[in-house]
Amino acid sequence: MQGGIQLIQNKQKKVVIIGAGFGGLWVAKTLANTGFHVTIIDKNNYHTFLPLLYQVSAAEVAPEQIASPVRNIVRKHNNIHFIRGAVSKIQYSTKTVLCLGQEIPFDYLIVSAGSENNYFNIPGVARYAFPLKTLDDAMVLRNHILTCFERASFVNDEKQRKRLLTVVIVGGGPTGVEFAGALAELIAGPLKKDFPELQHEEITVYLIEASDRLIGMYPEKLGDYTCKQLQKKGVKVVHNAAVTNIDATGVQLNNGGIIPTETVVWTAGVKGELIANDLNVKTMPNGRVIVDEYCRVPGYDDVFIIGDLACFMHNGKPLPMIAPVAMQQGRYVGKHLLQKLKGKTPIPFQYRDKGGMVAIGRNKAIAQIAGLHLKGYIAWILWIFIHILYLIGFKNKIFVMINWVYSYIFFEKSVRLILPRCCDDPHGDACLQRGRSCKG
Amino acid sequence: MQGGIQLIQNKQKKVVIIGAGFGGLWVAKTLANTGFHVTIIDKNNYHTFLPLLYQVSAAEVAPEQIASPVRNIVRKHNNIHFIRGAVSKIQYSTKTVLCLGQEIPFDYLIVSAGSENNYFNIPGVARYAFPLKTLDDAMVLRNHILTCFERASFVNDEKQRKRLLTVVIVGGGPTGVEFAGALAELIAGPLKKDFPELQHEEITVYLIEASDRLIGMYPEKLGDYTCKQLQKKGVKVVHNAAVTNIDATGVQLNNGGIIPTETVVWTAGVKGELIANDLNVKTMPNGRVIVDEYCRVPGYDDVFIIGDLACFMHNGKPLPMIAPVAMQQGRYVGKHLLQKLKGKTPIPFQYRDKGGMVAIGRNKAIAQIAGLHLKGYIAWILWIFIHILYLIGFKNKIFVMINWVYSYIFFEKSVRLILPRCCDDPHGDACLQRGRSCKG
Repeated sequence: MQGGIQLIQNKQKKVVIIGAGFGGLWVAKTLANTGFHVTIIDKNNYHTFLPLLYQVSAAEVAPEQIASPVRNIVRKHNNIHFIRGAVSKIQYSTKTVLCLGQEIPFDYLIVSAGSENNYFNIPGVARYAFPLKTLDDAMVLRNHILTCFERASFVNDEKQRKRLLTVVIVGGGPTGVEFAGALAELIAGPLKKDFPELQHEEITVYLIEASDRLIGMYPEKLGDYTCKQLQKKGVKVVHNAAVTNIDATGVQLNNGGIIPTETVVWTAGVKGELIANDLNVKTMPNGRVIVDEYCRVPGYDDVFIIGDLACFMHNGKPLPMIAPVAMQQGRYVGKHLLQKLKGKTPIPFQYRDKGGMVAIGRNKAIAQIAGLHLKGYIAWILWIFIHILYLIGFKNKIFVMINWVYSYIFFEKSVRLILPRCCDDPHGDACLQRGRSCKG
Repeated sequence: MQGGIQLIQNKQKKVVIIGAGFGGLWVAKTLANTGFHVTIIDKNNYHTFLPLLYQVSAAEVAPEQIASPVRNIVRKHNNIHFIRGAVSKIQYSTKTVLCLGQEIPFDYLIVSAGSENNYFNIPGVARYAFPLKTLDDAMVLRNHILTCFERASFVNDEKQRKRLLTVVIVGGGPTGVEFAGALAELIAGPLKKDFPELQHEEITVYLIEASDRLIGMYPEKLGDYTCKQLQKKGVKVVHNAAVTNIDATGVQLNNGGIIPTETVVWTAGVKGELIANDLNVKTMPNGRVIVDEYCRVPGYDDVFIIGDLACFMHNGKPLPMIAPVAMQQGRYVGKHLLQKLKGKTPIPFQYRDKGGMVAIGRNKAIAQIAGLHLKGYIAWILWIFIHILYLIGFKNKIFVMINWVYSYIFFEKSVRLILPRCCDDPHGDACLQRGRSCKG
């Protein structure tokens, strides 16, 4: 076979999937070993198990443990191919997408490119805050936090030390909550032993939430429980406060509060951003693209949008931006196409709400499943089980589970690494090219 | 305790160790829980198990598996402290070292900062070649190789594809040999399955050696065996050839040969480079600092240089730049200082040559131990045993061993990741700030 675009049998329908996240992968898996020629395109060569991303930034697991090379997943299936690159344009008029200067033809296009950070145009956020959406983000954030601790152990100026030892997490949704809990435990546990020279009273973690309760998509009782558990771990939870400005010295809130810090973590908003295209789409204010009951762009029976990027109305509200939605939509679109291939009429997408759960540190969680509200240890066991199940589901290795459970339980996995290091920064501050300029 | 420099009991002698490599760490371990106040300074917050570095670049193990956070190692010992930073100057006149703008006092100074790449001023090497000395280097190289394969699977131009699929390793010493073997197996194994669209005849690995045999520090028979094994794996071994120039399109050799490639790996030379200082040192042409029989800079009884940076004469030749030398010297210097503390006269350093070994892929090696020359499978078993022994020795976790052996045997560890990705490069080429400018 030649390099370049795969030779395609003339009669095979070409399915192009943009994004190797949960949505895209689940479409591909459903179409594995069928009559379709499937091409997955992603700018990374791996799929990230995003529900555990916060554990990478809290130095609990290594990045490799939640990343799966896409080629490893697809190589078992002859009809699925992978291109590593960014799609710059959707050209419906020619039924192609533009990627790395080449036009890739499609009969069916599935866009599952995920969501972007929404900084709401608040001054300083894009420049100074640390997002937590990708594996690169998680590594940068981990490196930064550890570097701040290293620098704090070396400076004599009390104010500067306090700034280095203050972390402000903006956004009290599941991501912010899970990261706050994990970070608080990292600080109280391994970092306390690693940095005996630091005064632990000087270390503070804030969780800032604009509304009056955390994880607002869950019942109030569970939100209150979550808040209390975080406070027990030493997290300062601030409700009804929004960020108005971030600069090099700290963050300003709309209640007049100013928190001096070198670390602001942004988990307060996401939006959709469809690739440049010649489609006729309608979007919500947050950029999510409105789709019909078949997850298609209205007016097109061959362009599907799924996952975070899609706005699929369910009981009068858009489905949330969570992994189970993307997975179910992915599986649905795969089946939809298979039905069409057989000449049958596909049925609309039906979302099955299996509930959700949020971890609070290493032994507590809240969960909402089948109308039941669970909290505490039992919810956490369930959380572990579900996550391992899904992690294993596509990694297919029992050993990974043992490894993960072991390191999770013993908490001594050596991932408190500032790695990689870049730039010739005298502090040796690790950073990666963030957007356009190096932060170090 | 305050942040900043540790309060030191007045009578404690202060030992400052520059470098948390094998030499530096072994000094610290020997002085653990003794009357010395020990400070280790390193620009990274982790120790790297360098003998397995090539496995990171060949996508066999994850970086975290060969990196140990220094604080994790030292926290058990109250008298050992760590500063993450680069030492910019040794100021013997004031018995201090300058680090992050602060002067750190010492009574005894041990410099174990390791060696640097030696590019011999050959045009283009510093700019275009990929070194393999640090964990950052290994990640950059791994990412680059995988990216080249991704790009090759997408380009139609045959010449460009060939360039992307050619890897030239310069330097037939242990590092070059081990990496060549691992890379050849990566290509013939997992990458062959990952990239079914590529013609494997187009993929070539060269190993360029300036002398007439590989691993010249071992007996000729073992060098020949090594060469044959590599050739069996498909590596093109080129003897008696030196690089005269490298540019963006490839590498030129002094025998007139030109190899078009985008990947030149430099393992052909190292040198010493002592930090700026006001000492009166003598160095070899390659920058290694000449030390006396006590590993001290001649004329100073309180400044020691060990490991790669030291030129310690043994049987008329400098000791090689290998881990066992650094470890033994580290342990020696620790004992030397303890003897002095007790008012005794230290004895000179005696190096015990325990031999060495070189892996050739996953089931062959050569070893020279106690006068015995071993090769093949039995040498490899020994290689595994010794490396695990040392890896465990300081990681102290049986589970790490099981994990490593498992992934090594089954070779399906998902580390074929292009991670992290940086810059807004349309190819998504992963790179880190290399020296001064981003290569991507």
